[in-house]
Order: sequence, then C-alpha cells, then structure tokens
Amino acid sequence: MTACEKIMAIVSGKAPADLVLKGGRLVIVLYGEIYQADLAIDSGKIVAQGKIKGRKEVKLGGKLICPGFIDSHVHIESSLVTIPEFSRTVVPLGTTTVVIDPHEIANVMGLDGIKYMLKTSKYQPLSVYLMLSSCVPASNLETSGSELRAMDLYPYADQEWILGLGEMMNFPAVIDCDPDVLDKIKLFEGKKIDGHAPGLTGKKLCGYIAMGIESDHECTTVEEAREKLRLGMTIMIREGGTAKNLKDLLPLVTPGTVGRCLFCTDDRNPSDLLGEGHINFMIKKSIELGLDPVAAIKMATVNAARYFGLRNSGAIAPGYIADLAVVDDLKNFNVVQVYKNGDLVAENGEMVHPPPPPARKEVLRGSINIRWLKEDYFAIPARGSRCRLIELVPEQIITKQAVIKPAVKEGVVVADPKRDILKLAVVERHLASSNLGLGLVRGFGLKKGAIASSVAHDSHNIIVVGTNNADMLEAVVKIRKIQGGLTVVADGELVGALPLPIAGLMSERSMKEVQRELAELTAVTRDLGVKIPDPFMALSFLALPVIPELKLTDQGLVDVDKFKIVDLFVK
Amino acid sequence: MTACEKIMAIVSGKAPADLVLKGGRLVIVLYGEIYQADLAIDSGKIVAQGKIKGRKEVKLGGKLICPGFIDSHVHIESSLVTIPEFSRTVVPLGTTTVVIDPHEIANVMGLDGIKYMLKTSKYQPLSVYLMLSSCVPASNLETSGSELRAMDLYPYADQEWILGLGEMMNFPAVIDCDPDVLDKIKLFEGKKIDGHAPGLTGKKLCGYIAMGIESDHECTTVEEAREKLRLGMTIMIREGGTAKNLKDLLPLVTPGTVGRCLFCTDDRNPSDLLGEGHINFMIKKSIELGLDPVAAIKMATVNAARYFGLRNSGAIAPGYIADLAVVDDLKNFNVVQVYKNGDLVAENGEMVHPPPPPARKEVLRGSINIRWLKEDYFAIPARGSRCRLIELVPEQIITKQAVIKPAVKEGVVVADPKRDILKLAVVERHLASSNLGLGLVRGFGLKKGAIASSVAHDSHNIIVVGTNNADMLEAVVKIRKIQGGLTVVADGELVGALPLPIAGLMSERSMKEVQRELAELTAVTRDLGVKIPDPFMALSFLALPVIPELKLTDQGLVDVDKFKIVDLFVK
Repeated sequence: MTACEKIMAIVSGKAPADLVLKGGRLVIVLYGEIYQADLAIDSGKIVAQGKIKGRKEVKLGGKLICPGFIDSHVHIESSLVTIPEFSRTVVPLGTTTVVIDPHEIANVMGLDGIKYMLKTSKYQPLSVYLMLSSCVPASNLETSGSELRAMDLYPYADQEWILGLGEMMNFPAVIDCDPDVLDKIKLFEGKKIDGHAPGLTGKKLCGYIAMGIESDHECTTVEEAREKLRLGMTIMIREGGTAKNLKDLLPLVTPGTVGRCLFCTDDRNPSDLLGEGHINFMIKKSIELGLDPVAAIKMATVNAARYFGLRNSGAIAPGYIADLAVVDDLKNFNVVQVYKNGDLVAENGEMVHPPPPPARKEVLRGSINIRWLKEDYFAIPARGSRCRLIELVPEQIITKQAVIKPAVKEGVVVADPKRDILKLAVVERHLASSNLGLGLVRGFGLKKGAIASSVAHDSHNIIVVGTNNADMLEAVVKIRKIQGGLTVVADGELVGALPLPIAGLMSERSMKEVQRELAELTAVTRDLGVKIPDPFMALSFLALPVIPELKLTDQGLVDVDKFKIVDLFVK
Repeated sequence: MTACEKIMAIVSGKAPADLVLKGGRLVIVLYGEIYQADLAIDSGKIVAQGKIKGRKEVKLGGKLICPGFIDSHVHIESSLVTIPEFSRTVVPLGTTTVVIDPHEIANVMGLDGIKYMLKTSKYQPLSVYLMLSSCVPASNLETSGSELRAMDLYPYADQEWILGLGEMMNFPAVIDCDPDVLDKIKLFEGKKIDGHAPGLTGKKLCGYIAMGIESDHECTTVEEAREKLRLGMTIMIREGGTAKNLKDLLPLVTPGTVGRCLFCTDDRNPSDLLGEGHINFMIKKSIELGLDPVAAIKMATVNAARYFGLRNSGAIAPGYIADLAVVDDLKNFNVVQVYKNGDLVAENGEMVHPPPPPARKEVLRGSINIRWLKEDYFAIPARGSRCRLIELVPEQIITKQAVIKPAVKEGVVVADPKRDILKLAVVERHLASSNLGLGLVRGFGLKKGAIASSVAHDSHNIIVVGTNNADMLEAVVKIRKIQGGLTVVADGELVGALPLPIAGLMSERSMKEVQRELAELTAVTRDLGVKIPDPFMALSFLALPVIPELKLTDQGLVDVDKFKIVDLFVK
C-alpha cells in the first residue's frame, strides 16, 4: 500500500490508524482555539480529526493535546549534561524539538565539538537542530580552543540538521563589515541567521538587520524588544538560568505581534530544569501572567517551526508530524504524555523506554591542556596602591568596576577576605600557552580556600577564585586531574569536585546526579563562607569579555565598554 | 564598496541612500500598526527608518506606505491580455507580485504555453511567480490541447520562478491515489502545493490535506473556510470576475486566523480590473466592510509572501525588497505611487516608463486547428421527444439541468428563440479531430445569429451558441479566420469580433482596447436580443465539466454530478 492509499483507507474507514487519541481537547494553534475531537495518527503523522478506528486507542478524557514544544535557542552545554541526558530530562516535559547552538563546546573543541553534538543528537526522542556557532572565539581578548572561520563552517551549511547561523553576537564586527563575518552571513543566505544584539538601537540596528539577521533573544525591556519587532526581527523571549526575561517581555505579546514571538531558554541549569521545567514552565508562567493560553502555546510551537522553516511541524493538522504534548489542564499544566513521531515516549514525567545506548561511545580528546604551574604564577607584585576590582552584581551576569586599595603583603597583593576581596585568575587551558590573567573580585564571600571551574564563558578557560595562591593552584591542578569540571579546595586539600570530562563542560552522568552533586558542592562552598546562591554560575560569567563592565580573561582584565585590556593597577 | 559597507555608511550618515521617502506613514504589517517615519532605500532594498540623507528625496506628507500587494492566485489569461499588458494595468494599482497558474494556456499549448508565460514575465515591473498547472486536462471528458504529466513538469520543478504545484482541482484523483497525481505531489514536496476543493469536507478533506496540499481558494461560505483553516489550510479569499467571495468570507478573519488568510483574484476580467481595481480594491472593500486596515494590508502582502516562502518580501523592514505602494488614505485608498525594487514605476495610475519592448517577440504557433466543417454537422436528428437542457444561473458558473420538449423541424431539433431555447455546440480545436458536442441551452435571450468563443474553460475548445446552424458554422469559421477570439454572426455575416490570437485566449493589444472592444461586442449581442450582462463569460464556463450540473464538451453533454457523458435525449 502506498502512503496515499493508507491515508485514504484510514479516512474512509477501511483500515484502522496506528493510533487514535480519543476525547482529548486539541489546541489548534493555527486557528487560536481549543476544541474536543478525536485525533488519528499513522506512520508518525497526524492523519485526521474525527471518528476513526485505531489499532491502538488512548482515552484522554478532556486532557489537552498540544503540539510538542520547541526551544528556539539553547546551549545544552549549560545544563552540564550530554544531549541524550538533556533529552531524557526535557522530553517528559513536552519538549520535542530544540534548536541548539553548540557555541560552548565549539569554543573548546571547534568542529570536533560540533560533530560530537551532531552525533550524540542521533536516535533521540528529541529533534535536535543546530544553528552553527558564528562567533568562535567570541572576542580577540581571550584565548579559545578553536577559531571557526567561514571556510570551516562551509561544509556544514547544507546539512540536513543545520538550520543556519547561530547568534551573531559580534554585532560590532557586522557593523564594521568584517570580511570573515560577512562570509559567514553570505554562507547562510537563504537559511536562518539568529541575532544577539543587546542594546543595539536605531539606525545601527537597522544596518545589522539589513544584513539578514532575523532574530534576537537578548532583549531585557519591552521597549528594546518592540523596536526590534517593528524592524522585522523575531523575538525569542528567554527564561534562562540567570537571564530571566519572560515577565518583563510578556507585555510585548499582542494579537498583532504574537506570531513573531518565540520562547527560548538559552542557558538553563539542572536545578531550574528539574525544578521549574523547560518550555512547559514558560507556557505555564505566561498563562499565569495573563497571556491567552493558545497564544502562549503558539509561541512555544508553530511560531518557532515557521521561523525556522520546519515543515509540517508545530501544529495539529493533517500531514503534520505527530509530536504532541498531552497536558492535564491549563492551570496546572502538567505534561502527562509525550508523543514523538506518533510514539508514546514519555508518561507522567518519565521516559517510557530507557534511552537507547549510543551506537558507539563518542570519544573526545581531553580538553585540559595546561603546562606545569607553580604557586608563584598566581602572585601579583604590588606595582601600585590602587587596583581595579570586579564587583559582582547579584543574580546578573554583568559586573561593576570598582577601584580599591588592596591588601599588600611582602610586596604582593593578597586576598583580603575580611573585606571580601578575593583573588581571581583565568588559566588558559586549550593550547598550554601558560597564559594567565590575574585580578580581584568582590561579592563571593569566600573566607578560605579556592573554587575553580573549567566552565568559563565563552572560551572556557579555567577560572579560579581564592583566598590564597596555594589553594588556587591546587584547585586548578585538580581540574586537570579530573579532566575538567568544578573543584573546591581548602587548606591544600580537595574538599569537593564535579567532574565534567566532556570538553570540561559536560558530565556523562544523569541530570539528577549532576544536580545533586552540584548542590552538594555548593553546600561545601557555603561552609567556606560563600553567600551567593550559585557561585559556579557567577564564576563562569566572570571571564566573558562581551558583557559589561569589568571581566578577566587569560589575557588580562578587560574593560568591556572600551573593549580592551586594562591594567590591574590604576595610576 | 561592499554591500555591507554601503549599508553601514548610510546608517552612520557617511553616505546618502539612493532614495528617502520622507514624512510617509509606514504600514508595519509585521507589528500591526501605522506610524510616521522616514524610509531609506538603497540598491533596491529597504535599509532603515529614521533621519537619513537621500540622493533623491520624496516628500509624502502623511501618505501611507504599504508593502506592494501580492495576488496569491491568478490566471492572467482570464484578463484576455498578455503579461506585460496585465502588468501595466495592475502595477499602477499597487500590485508588485503575482502568483500565476498558467492553467488556461497550458490546456491549449502545454509546455509551450508555460514557457511563453515564463518568457513574457521577464523584465516586467511585476514579479511573476508560477505555480505549475497540476490538472491539464482538467478531466477526461473533454479534449484539451495538451496533457501534462508529472514527467513533463519535472524539469521545471526547481526553477527559480516556480513556487510549486498549482491548484490541485482533481481532488477525486488525490483521494483515489491516482499514480500520476501522486507523482506530481511528490515532485513538489518541499515547495508549495495549492489546493482547490470546493465542498470537500470532513475526513476526506483531512486525507486531501494530509497529502501536503496547503491552500484553498474555492471557499464560498465561512463554515467551509473555517473547517479548512482549522485543519491547517491557508485560505485565499477570492474576488474574481464571476466568483466574488470577499464579503461572504470576511467574517473568517480574526486576530487568530488573519495570518493564514490571503487575497486572490483567480479570474478577473478587464472591466473589473479597470473599473474596480485589483488587490487594492480587495483591501479597500475589506476596510469598508469593517476589517482592521492593517490586517487587510497584511493579507495582501506579508501573509502571501510567507505562505509562498518569498524571502524579504511583503513587509517594510531593513533588508526587505523595496516593493511599495503609496496610498493617499485608508478611506479612499487611491494608489498614488508604486515602487518596484526601489524604483518609482507608477504614479497616479500610470506607468512612469512605457513597458520595455520585448527582447524578441515571442511567437506561438496557431492554436485553432479545425478540419473543414459543414453546416449539417450542427444538425441534431430528433431521436426522441424530450431533451436535456443547460439552464444558465444568473451570475454564476454553475448551471442547472432541465428537461424540455424541443422544437423539431423536418426531423431535426432546432432552436426555439421564442422559448429562449438555443443550440449550443463545442467544436474541438486542438487536434483537428472533428469532435463536436451538441446541446441546448436556455438563458441567453439571443433572438437571431450566433455567438462563438475560443475561450471555453478548461480545454478552450470553440463554443458556439446560436439560433441556426448556418450562423453557428459561420461564427466558428470566423474564429478560425482570426486565429482565435470572440465572434458574433447574424444572417450569415460577421457583425463583430475580438481577436485573441495568443492561444485563442489573449489579445496582443492593451487592456483598455480589449475592454472597449469587448464592451462593443457585448453591445452587438444586445442588439441580437441577449439579456445577460456578460454573455462571453457565461459561454466560456458552459464547457467546464467540473462545475455542476450540466455542461457540454466536444465529447458531448456531461452530467457533472455523475461525472459522465449523457445523451441529449431522455427516454
């Protein structure tokens, strides 16, 4: 029987469909309404609404059938787990498609990292599309593990699972018409190019958009988002681990604009995923905040499918892929069943089948390449009496710049835990170049020991904060020993560690284990005096030289507004 | 200077843009609002909003700037003129893009006709995209000039100006899984497939849609359209020459559905185009009927662009093609200027430049292939006393079937003008097969003479209605003489003619001349007693065997509901 004959046999009652969902209420995002109807599915696709016999029939008693949810922009690395494990976490939450930008692993591993992500995406009950990382490295003020030029991306541009070019963070380079950036844009003409332009406005924003950049997920105010929408951009409203914009941006969504508003999580940590949820949480919260439920579900489904050109995706209609999330009701919004290509893949929060073992284990090279280090590498000779200091801003990834008089002992600047002034270092870990940047930071509250991480956006060198050089050295050495991850050292002893052996970014273990270990490790830092809720997250953004005001890379302190390396000492 | 450098020089004020439209009110279909801002255009594209210097500056004093209008489904042949002439008519009305289905000429000329349409589309100030005709011939109950099988369409499927497969009228063949129809559908997977399924409903409609057919323009009631929208179809609301559905369907358009509603004209005659207008008329009328103006303009612009995947088209935003219609105000909705790729191409209803002469005249073979005919070919031997009769329905293309006692003279059925019973014949004109179908019709009011036309949907054989055989023969002979067109004969003499030498469907002259001549010819038929407003339109649909109830083809009388040839005589 041809596919057509099968379909026509089903609609004419001559043959049963693979599956009929009976008595559910269909969320018709294409029409803006919810109504009760039986839904017939065959060969992984929706065939028809109406009374049809099914080989298997499932009674849903008024539960809501939504199209499966789509995360329009996410860095899975930020969840510290592999794609299969991420999938196992988010699929039971109703997510059936994610559009990832493997920017973190690409900064460490380059194309090997991207290939790894492509390979580990296979055979998951989750469609994983890639936007190719556009900005590796993110800046020239840090040392990354790789540089991806247009020529490197070329062979990937036409691959099936590649939807386009990932967030073009380097908007100054676009405006400066940097030739390699323009090559990248040209390479993806006819595909999608995602933007990333916080605060860009007016005619320069027009110029950026005119180059073909179509979306932005960095808006923090309605005014900013409104200007971008008016100028034709699609707005991805983000509810990440740190950057939570949903509540602020929701007033943007009106009947006139809803079609170009999507949901994304960008970076989301294990505890938010396991605690709050994923896109299902964004829908639920939007409804609580007063958004029309069908509009919210539309943002999470067909809008993203249409933006990315995913055919027959994101809606309940004949011929559409049967990716479905069954939800108890609009208030509780508990996802009770998830169908992928018409197969039940998750029920009541758990996967129906254990994830398939990978065809072969994907082996990546070790990513921690450091030459031998000595304690005195961390010493800061006191070349002046006033120092720049990085001031944490609670719950944000921006920092403030302060100038302080540091404590000096025997001619070197030392940490001063009483004033909460700690030493900060970034150790280059890709090329074993021995690059090491040194600075001071305030806001952690650490009283003794050191905390280190090989997750340090965007180049992911090793960042370490501490009260003394010996512990800082030991924390870095221990990261090398576990081939990447998070370490806590006190009095020269390792008091806690979370290994992240995949590129120094991801664990091979389960999301729940990672969450538990991270919680335990955070508790260990509390014992050492840390007061902020998520010291590892805070630490990981201190090396990101594209977010204001003062950051530290392996090349030194970066004044982000001036976009240049500055001296630790102020004259 | 690279394109990027030029854009950035313009937005930073270092270089002027080609053109700045100053003081206009921008219709932002992507956001659902209208606001005043200057608009800079360069190299055919919109660059930015805001204060920018232009090499040329045009003051618009509060006039509305809309994206250029898009007709999502039109058979240009029905306007009786060539594409350049159609273009000259509709571009000053704000239309900058049309999606045509060359179904009429394809039925006469096959691929030669499609190639002719592609060639004559070139270098026009109108983007002419094609949907390849899916149903040539429209049925097997008539003789067409060509048969287009999937293999014939294959070489065209990937061409730049081909957007997909035109209206799949033969929905019974889809539901019957006809292999060649399925081949055509398969050929256009990943492109667009337009539908045409009047009255198809329920699970069979689901089956039709599940095969990948995405739109319908045949809805006549809100209920019908609503079902199709709910099932995922895009609805093209039609305001044609005969089929006028705008008023009836407008209640369909809500904030939840507007994104999937488009405008089309399907078949529109010269007097409607010159009198009422084109898509501009549909917008104006929608606004008059109470639709939100921006919603109406959205349906006429970006919705069609998105449906057909026309990138950077249909909206006012940086990077978008500068196809613009400047309108005086929302009430009068007079199109005062039209820009195509940033060039002023029409002003105050006239083209700015005369249309460019074609690079070379496209010569098509003659399409009127008839063997010698004799008067007695039109004789109907009286094989019975009761005949089927085609009953015209005023202003509609459907007919009713009646049974009457015909007038009989010397053993043959004759016309009986007193009872308004006329003879009708369809003469095959493609293959010189001598096929000739005979019937009776009521409703024209013709008292003497005969009226003939080589426009006779969908196979476009020659159809002739008359009071006597001699005049009917002469009317057909004269059509052969002028190589296609419309003729009126009385007392053996030609009393009027409109030559349509291009495939027997189109004139080489201007729309205005064609309109005038058609009006004169219609006046001539009035002198002969015709009472209906548009006898040539009515005549042209009497040979269309896919529209109920009783039609006549060269193969005989067709009972459309039974979809078979029936005898003229009833037992």
